[in-house]
Amino acid sequence: MARVTFPPALLLALQTAFGTRVSIAAAVREHHGRDESPFDPQLPDAVVFALSAADVITVVQLCAQYRVPVIPYGSGSSLEGHLLAIRGGVSLDVSGMNRVLAINAEDLTATVEPGLTRKALNEALRDTGLFFPIDPGADASIGGMAATRASGTNAVRYGTMRENVLALGVVLADGRLIKTGTRARKSSAGYDLTRLMVGSEGTLGVITEVTVRLYPQPEAVSAAVCAFPSMGDAVQAVIETIQLGVPVARVEFVDALAVRAINRHSKLSLRESPTLFFEFHGTDAGVAEQAQRVQEIAADHHGEDFEWSVRPEDRSRLWNARHNAYFAMLQLKPGCRAVTTDVCVPISRLAECVIETERDLQRSSLPCPIVGHVGDGNFHVAILIDPERPEELQEAEQINQRIVRRALAMDGTCTGEHGVGLHKMGFMLEEHGNDAVSVMRAIKQALDPLNLMNPGKIFD
Amino acid sequence: MARVTFPPALLLALQTAFGTRVSIAAAVREHHGRDESPFDPQLPDAVVFALSAADVITVVQLCAQYRVPVIPYGSGSSLEGHLLAIRGGVSLDVSGMNRVLAINAEDLTATVEPGLTRKALNEALRDTGLFFPIDPGADASIGGMAATRASGTNAVRYGTMRENVLALGVVLADGRLIKTGTRARKSSAGYDLTRLMVGSEGTLGVITEVTVRLYPQPEAVSAAVCAFPSMGDAVQAVIETIQLGVPVARVEFVDALAVRAINRHSKLSLRESPTLFFEFHGTDAGVAEQAQRVQEIAADHHGEDFEWSVRPEDRSRLWNARHNAYFAMLQLKPGCRAVTTDVCVPISRLAECVIETERDLQRSSLPCPIVGHVGDGNFHVAILIDPERPEELQEAEQINQRIVRRALAMDGTCTGEHGVGLHKMGFMLEEHGNDAVSVMRAIKQALDPLNLMNPGKIFD
Repeated sequence: MARVTFPPALLLALQTAFGTRVSIAAAVREHHGRDESPFDPQLPDAVVFALSAADVITVVQLCAQYRVPVIPYGSGSSLEGHLLAIRGGVSLDVSGMNRVLAINAEDLTATVEPGLTRKALNEALRDTGLFFPIDPGADASIGGMAATRASGTNAVRYGTMRENVLALGVVLADGRLIKTGTRARKSSAGYDLTRLMVGSEGTLGVITEVTVRLYPQPEAVSAAVCAFPSMGDAVQAVIETIQLGVPVARVEFVDALAVRAINRHSKLSLRESPTLFFEFHGTDAGVAEQAQRVQEIAADHHGEDFEWSVRPEDRSRLWNARHNAYFAMLQLKPGCRAVTTDVCVPISRLAECVIETERDLQRSSLPCPIVGHVGDGNFHVAILIDPERPEELQEAEQINQRIVRRALAMDGTCTGEHGVGLHKMGFMLEEHGNDAVSVMRAIKQALDPLNLMNPGKIFD
Repeated sequence: MARVTFPPALLLALQTAFGTRVSIAAAVREHHGRDESPFDPQLPDAVVFALSAADVITVVQLCAQYRVPVIPYGSGSSLEGHLLAIRGGVSLDVSGMNRVLAINAEDLTATVEPGLTRKALNEALRDTGLFFPIDPGADASIGGMAATRASGTNAVRYGTMRENVLALGVVLADGRLIKTGTRARKSSAGYDLTRLMVGSEGTLGVITEVTVRLYPQPEAVSAAVCAFPSMGDAVQAVIETIQLGVPVARVEFVDALAVRAINRHSKLSLRESPTLFFEFHGTDAGVAEQAQRVQEIAADHHGEDFEWSVRPEDRSRLWNARHNAYFAMLQLKPGCRAVTTDVCVPISRLAECVIETERDLQRSSLPCPIVGHVGDGNFHVAILIDPERPEELQEAEQINQRIVRRALAMDGTCTGEHGVGLHKMGFMLEEHGNDAVSVMRAIKQALDPLNLMNPGKIFD
């Protein structure tokens, strides 16, 4: 896709409006032209550091006037190339818009600026007895998480950004600022613009404000870990747990290779076989009852070494190990980079999907540990490649393609939580069909007729 | 809005395609030209009884060809005039499309045709240990519930149709059939067409298939009822219950007048003061713990006569009384009809909103009992009018307007669960603002350029 010419008059107008908050320095552009994906950087022509919705409006209006793309930038942690300026244009950095605008504890809501990160939000909530549960691995910005419809390990109990964004402020392609909802917990008043914007990856507008749902901090939290002889046994245990209505807060699958990586990295001695990590939230009696229930289910499915921890330090040790799995896995192959897949299938197909994937991976020379948000049917393969060897990237992409096609054939999706970006565009037609994609395109065309809002993402 | 001329050639084409499944009989058109709203009927020109998605496609294509409106019809239970053929056209009755297409118990999903009612779905689920929780008062069709983004008493725990529809089949205005999602529990693959269609009230297409989430039947269910000296005390008890994370399945408010109606109708002797009805789902120990917790909270807020029931017959007696509240209330004024309001506000504003509303209602000569899905901040005033006295309808509408404006001023919505239809159209600009409504219009225009899909609903 050709880069748009960046008119000097636009730069001048931006400099007049924003002074030192506009940068065309190579290092700044470099930093804003990449994300955590394996793609080569593609630099924006300029970066503007916005501090308010008014700033966002000014940038969007000027860019519309000069027909130049706008790419919103939060914390730079997206995984599928969302931030790359493939047509050039302005990277609109909202990381400075990081205020908590309101915490409405009685309503279990908070309204924040898009650049606030999830950890900073939880820090701000510390004294309220409430928390915001959505936890993608990175300390992502709330705006970016809304834009990619992010989730993480807590989604099995608390849902994803789809369920947890109540309302957004969005600057449209023509510079108008809309509010997509109220703070009412539910509404039937017209089209669901909130959910339309959540997951739209900056292609329909720039998010300037996010109202999210909060949850009471559980009175008691406990964790458990359990090894299984096979993936199939582990997944059957999860299916039964969920079908019996045990309200697990987290249930994560880690394959034998990933356990080995975790053991090395976190100095643990977990059995190196397919393993489930659980977390339970509730009352003291409730979490004990949940753990008891899950232990029985696990035993029915040949689970071994069921270890249950209520002490915070033990819980932290286990869950920190799980949370550090990504870095632990990278150490399986020094100097490597991970190409991470992200399919999600109906849970009844998960064992089959992972087992076929494992069989496929065995034919590869690349180390490919697997971790999964197994309660949701979502799993990630970290395909570890040497960034200096293009044939390894190519092999990783082929593996990813086979995994996606396998998931689609099982009524699954090409991306459970990372988004489409550049990386999954090629699967949109296969997943949704021509007609559904044409509906998405019609909406894009209606709201961004000049195709200036993060162009070339989701679809060409 | 002017009625469209109904071309004889279209009738002939429909008769050729559908034979006796097309009707222009006055009684059939009469039945399809009304819903449960207080509006006078507006008859469609013809009614087609569809039995398949192919039938829906044929009707939509023929209507597009002749530029004639299409109004999907499920069970006729909508409350805001959604079904009225204000421009004439074809009522597309999908009540015969009532098959359960798949129950995927392991995945906790079911895929059904749109005409299946919620009770019929639960009947089909009886032996699976699962249930579908969304319960608007009426035995509505699943397609209609999706179209209006319905909810009911269980929403505080299980969410609304927004959270519980995973995917839809939809016939677009040009006759193309799309699928809006997969059976994966979560996805970040492009725009959320499912949530766009949920709540679109037939204005963007005709729903032909719905995949919904199911839940395990709770092992134990218990109920409680508790009277409070004031609305404010009752709401404070609810706020505290939710903020402490007690996972109540239902919590319903009933005001003193509604309690009186319930007592008369269901032969109970509840104290005639503001009252909360609770339902708890969980394990035996869990529901006991929840009830204990709620009883303590209620006591802190001057709750009295806390009555807790685990025996199914006692639970049923209490909750049947609540479920029959609508009919009980109608009996407060023989021969009356109810104009039902449907605002929803952030729960922190609920007491204030209801108390101001009560004060307002005291100035009215009409009986106006109040019931509320109080955990969601949603409440209904049933304004009981004599249908023969237009001045009473007028007064009811004025009351409704004041209630809506009060709710909007508190960051609430004009409709929590009934939808916009004809009745709330006048509030769309006030609630969303010109620009957000113009985005909705742009989407409508992009997907239905001829304005044939349930025209004149949501917005003109």
